[in-house]
Amino acid sequence: MDRRSGCPINLSVEVLGDRWSLVVLRDIMFGNFRTYGELHANSLEGIATNILANRLKRLMEEGLVTASADPTHKQRTIYNLTEMAIALVPVMAQLGAWGSRFLPASPQLSARAIALAEGGPPLWDAFTAELRYLHLGAPKPPRSVLAELDAAYRAAGQNP
Amino acid sequence: MDRRSGCPINLSVEVLGDRWSLVVLRDIMFGNFRTYGELHANSLEGIATNILANRLKRLMEEGLVTASADPTHKQRTIYNLTEMAIALVPVMAQLGAWGSRFLPASPQLSARAIALAEGGPPLWDAFTAELRYLHLGAPKPPRSVLAELDAAYRAAGQNP
Repeated sequence: MDRRSGCPINLSVEVLGDRWSLVVLRDIMFGNFRTYGELHANSLEGIATNILANRLKRLMEEGLVTASADPTHKQRTIYNLTEMAIALVPVMAQLGAWGSRFLPASPQLSARAIALAEGGPPLWDAFTAELRYLHLGAPKPPRSVLAELDAAYRAAGQNP
Repeated sequence: MDRRSGCPINLSVEVLGDRWSLVVLRDIMFGNFRTYGELHANSLEGIATNILANRLKRLMEEGLVTASADPTHKQRTIYNLTEMAIALVPVMAQLGAWGSRFLPASPQLSARAIALAEGGPPLWDAFTAELRYLHLGAPKPPRSVLAELDAAYRAAGQNP
């Protein structure tokens, strides 16, 4: 792929600078939606089937996602984040914090983003370890950041 | 503007998820290019004039950039970052660090990004103070992070 310049910010936005690509990565990372069907059914933004298929293909070409056969349903594909995609945790944290602060974000949907941002590097490291377990077959870590973020989301729903 | 969901990451990418928008913000923020002419002449990616004009307009509509008359040339417009855009410093730092690590970034262009990422929150705070001085008329801070980043860039050019 031709790149417009070797500036790391330019390269990053050439790879991620499509709103659907980042939203699909968000759903795999934070929702742990791992199949085409789950990603489509749980899309908050109502992603169209052709856009979802196209972006999964593009994310695979860019080295952010790999596909493997589901051991329980051979016809079904499971999508996994690569190390390169898992390394986006701090980007997602900062982007979520910025959106929560400056854009008309839903308080409940912001709860997860704010918890992730406020946890800072120690929480991002624990989340990275959990994502390596879920996507790359690394050992299961003692802490589940996904469970902690879900708890923050549910608590925000009860106290709006 | 209609937003697809209230998720803060979705909202952020709806506002920033256009590669040219983020690259224009980068040039205003790190290059301190403040006029249409400077932004066009110094674009590493060779931004086309119509795209530059369109993205500046969109960044103003989104509340990321304001325009003011140049006191020395009344016909000329100076573009200023808003507080909302200055608050993207941590996002830019994380995105630059990620691109430097995983994409074929130029070592010299990466030097600034790596210096910004490695400086962490204390450096980001100092840079925020400098941007508030340059764009919002805040008092001049003692430290120039722009000068420090430029020094890192020049040093990397001498020792490739």
